[in-house]
Amino acid sequence: SKKKIRVQALIDQLGLRNAAKTVIGDEGHRGVSGGERRRVSIGIDIIHDPILLFLDEPTSGLDSTSAYMVVKVLQRIAQSGSIVIMSIHQPSYRILGLLDRMIFLSRGQTVYSGSPMNLPHFFDEFGHPIPENENRTEFALDLIRELEGSPGGTKSLVEFNKTWQNMKQSRNTNAHSDSQGLSLKEAISASISRGKLVSGATNNDASSPTSMVPNFANPAWKEMVVLSQRSVTNSRRMPELFGIRAGAVIVTGFILATIFWQLDSSPKGVQERLGFFAFAMSTTFYTCADALPVFLQERYIFMRETAHNAYRRSSYVLSHTLTSLPALVFLSFAFSAITFWAVGLDGGFFFYFLMMFASFWAGNSFVTFLSGVVPHVMLGYTIVVAILAYFLLFSGFFITRDRIPPYWIWFHYLSLVKYPYEAVLQSEFGNPVKCFVRGVQIFDNTPLAAVPTAMKVRLLETLGRTLNMRITTSTCLTTGVDILDKEAVNQLSKWSCLWITVAWGFFFRFLFYFSLLLGSKNKRR
Amino acid sequence: SKKKIRVQALIDQLGLRNAAKTVIGDEGHRGVSGGERRRVSIGIDIIHDPILLFLDEPTSGLDSTSAYMVVKVLQRIAQSGSIVIMSIHQPSYRILGLLDRMIFLSRGQTVYSGSPMNLPHFFDEFGHPIPENENRTEFALDLIRELEGSPGGTKSLVEFNKTWQNMKQSRNTNAHSDSQGLSLKEAISASISRGKLVSGATNNDASSPTSMVPNFANPAWKEMVVLSQRSVTNSRRMPELFGIRAGAVIVTGFILATIFWQLDSSPKGVQERLGFFAFAMSTTFYTCADALPVFLQERYIFMRETAHNAYRRSSYVLSHTLTSLPALVFLSFAFSAITFWAVGLDGGFFFYFLMMFASFWAGNSFVTFLSGVVPHVMLGYTIVVAILAYFLLFSGFFITRDRIPPYWIWFHYLSLVKYPYEAVLQSEFGNPVKCFVRGVQIFDNTPLAAVPTAMKVRLLETLGRTLNMRITTSTCLTTGVDILDKEAVNQLSKWSCLWITVAWGFFFRFLFYFSLLLGSKNKRR
Repeated sequence: SKKKIRVQALIDQLGLRNAAKTVIGDEGHRGVSGGERRRVSIGIDIIHDPILLFLDEPTSGLDSTSAYMVVKVLQRIAQSGSIVIMSIHQPSYRILGLLDRMIFLSRGQTVYSGSPMNLPHFFDEFGHPIPENENRTEFALDLIRELEGSPGGTKSLVEFNKTWQNMKQSRNTNAHSDSQGLSLKEAISASISRGKLVSGATNNDASSPTSMVPNFANPAWKEMVVLSQRSVTNSRRMPELFGIRAGAVIVTGFILATIFWQLDSSPKGVQERLGFFAFAMSTTFYTCADALPVFLQERYIFMRETAHNAYRRSSYVLSHTLTSLPALVFLSFAFSAITFWAVGLDGGFFFYFLMMFASFWAGNSFVTFLSGVVPHVMLGYTIVVAILAYFLLFSGFFITRDRIPPYWIWFHYLSLVKYPYEAVLQSEFGNPVKCFVRGVQIFDNTPLAAVPTAMKVRLLETLGRTLNMRITTSTCLTTGVDILDKEAVNQLSKWSCLWITVAWGFFFRFLFYFSLLLGSKNKRR
Repeated sequence: SKKKIRVQALIDQLGLRNAAKTVIGDEGHRGVSGGERRRVSIGIDIIHDPILLFLDEPTSGLDSTSAYMVVKVLQRIAQSGSIVIMSIHQPSYRILGLLDRMIFLSRGQTVYSGSPMNLPHFFDEFGHPIPENENRTEFALDLIRELEGSPGGTKSLVEFNKTWQNMKQSRNTNAHSDSQGLSLKEAISASISRGKLVSGATNNDASSPTSMVPNFANPAWKEMVVLSQRSVTNSRRMPELFGIRAGAVIVTGFILATIFWQLDSSPKGVQERLGFFAFAMSTTFYTCADALPVFLQERYIFMRETAHNAYRRSSYVLSHTLTSLPALVFLSFAFSAITFWAVGLDGGFFFYFLMMFASFWAGNSFVTFLSGVVPHVMLGYTIVVAILAYFLLFSGFFITRDRIPPYWIWFHYLSLVKYPYEAVLQSEFGNPVKCFVRGVQIFDNTPLAAVPTAMKVRLLETLGRTLNMRITTSTCLTTGVDILDKEAVNQLSKWSCLWITVAWGFFFRFLFYFSLLLGSKNKRR
């Protein structure tokens, strides 16, 4: 299509043909060279064909031929109607020839402003003629630095420049038509009237050619397809990110499965089951913290692209969400399959898997939201770890709901770990006919645990007589429901917990979207 | 002193006088400009007065006057006997005049090698004379690029250069004394014989002037003083790093103090005390994870400096350790003071504080060691969080020692959290006269908890009769020692736990030292 042709033409103009298939790379990966990277970033900025281009040293780090080519491309853009302003430190003779107008600054004051052609004339009149075989700009810069070091500073040159400008102004006053005389505002209007738009959009709506209304070049579904493809490509390029998460989940699953291998139903076993669930549920949230760098790495790209209205923010959030789901399904299935039968859990594998998936989803959304608001990875990690630790503390495992002081109970209901933890507890202990304390096991958690079994049986009979009940060694004294009551897990059904967890996930995705809407207003810190 | 004069002279030579008091800065902080940073890094490399200096584009990003000054400084170093090799992309006319010898490369093949003076002569003979008013190098580079694009490539020029070199060689063969004819090895020997040493040390031991033995300019105590001052300055410049840690510790302490406010001694209260200790002890370790970036940020500086033998690695480790201690004392005191009385702990504040300090120390050493071996912050954080989670899992809280499967018991003894956890448990429950279950409270954790109190009293009497003991409502049925036995915390005394924790800290500091010894061998990834 037309867009692709334009991209290919620009790649050739910037001399990037050899590097076209190379990954840009970062500190960790070796990608294109510094000069190539510089040209890529120039290319990204000029592909939109902007009205105004302000470049800080676009040629530094480039060899002289590439520098010349870059400035040549910029000249072509300037000739097509854009305004190109750039700073340059070591202008070579040839580059100088491409510039229309040049300003020398010395400590914030203009010491020369005009065409490079007039430079010898200017310094001639100032009383320091440029020698024949010297580079003009080098001579000028050295002279300025020399003056900066002298007692009077560059004052004489600044003054001289002012009178020289006035002189030129008066000479030019009857020939105002040349572009040199245009103010910046006039130049921008001229450039817009030549057909340039704010965004690089193909929208040629004649009714408001100069208005700054943001509009999008593509429909939402197309944006989502492109963005999803890109994020799939990105994650395929960084398999270590998913690898670390999968590794953490599988290793933790394996450790939990072996340390809590085939738990019994004794009182100690029940306490260990509670510990297993608390640990397993916080694992799903902690491993989501590895999702933190995904958006943080993309943030500058995202901000640059949405600033150019390249796509809708909602498309970004949706495609980001969709592409993360397959990984979550895989992780939750791996974790549930490793732990469910090894630990000897009850209550159905399918619900256990669903609950794992829901908590991975909620944790992922929560971390994604945080990645939209924290300024950098280190702080983000600290905050995620701290908040998840508090979630675990308030989940009901360390201190049951009925024992939490009233001034903290609101945090208990905010705790993301509470809902998955209660759901799996109910699934595990919800069976009313399953028995956890039978007969003499009643003494296991009391000081009488050390008494011989025969004595325990006699004690049990005595108890039964006192209570007017028949209690034998096979009488069930604690069912799962009793345990749930003791742990104060009896407000919500397991399916309510599941839906609440899923809803938290959606809630944090919405917050992420709003943080993007607000966050991209203040461009840079 | 002499060293300071040398530093000041170099600052002037590199034109860094204005920036001498500015912080270098990084992505987050705005410090010196790009050009200034470049000059600083050149200054760091040349202050040692090295034999051989290999610079990749030292002038790019500098304005032409600074570029000229940098090359001028390099020329002075070359004239003092060093060998200076540099790549350069946009050599200006003046810089060209400072170079002794120049090599043009095209796709890895030499197309010109010789003095810049001979360039016009060379291209004259090749059949492409350089026009009078053109920059010589620009012309040459353009010509080479043109040839690269042509079908034959630069083959003709490569061939021509070879014959030209042979011609020159035969002409020079009877005048071998000029430095152009020296091989690199001969040049290095010559430079060493002129008094240059490998390190910039003042050691002028005449017995081995050419040997590469590493030696240090300063005694160990002086290195430690300087390094300690520097790390104090560094942490004062980054108060947010300590602020985050102190904030995490104080906030967590406050939350723990309020949620576990004045715990009672009932069976549920005992379980909550266990939870409090497990959580508090892992907090001390988790907050140490914030120490991770400290060394990672310094790592390249450290590697560069120790590669130059600027100081001993042991001095670095010792001063690093010493300067971290005051912060740890503060953190452990804050955390103990906040939680000890609020939760209503027993066993003496001083031991509690000591144990907190020991676990902060062990955690800090552990994280410092990891920061010496992991390649970057993100991976480091993931690993620290995962390992600490496993430490907590195996500490004896989630599953008591007697219930851990035999194939995992080794990990229980490796768990850093085990020792502080057991120490505070023993300090809390070690009092043999303190009672935790008295009279009818024995039924609290059993299915009989819901029975009316009068009935419980009767049950208690029945039990006493059966056991031939007198049990009233005030009889103590569980002491702290019983709880410790139930939690299987009875192998080590509390003081042994304290010393083992301190020893772990020293152990990881030693590992950190060894990781530095090994790690700095392979310089860069």
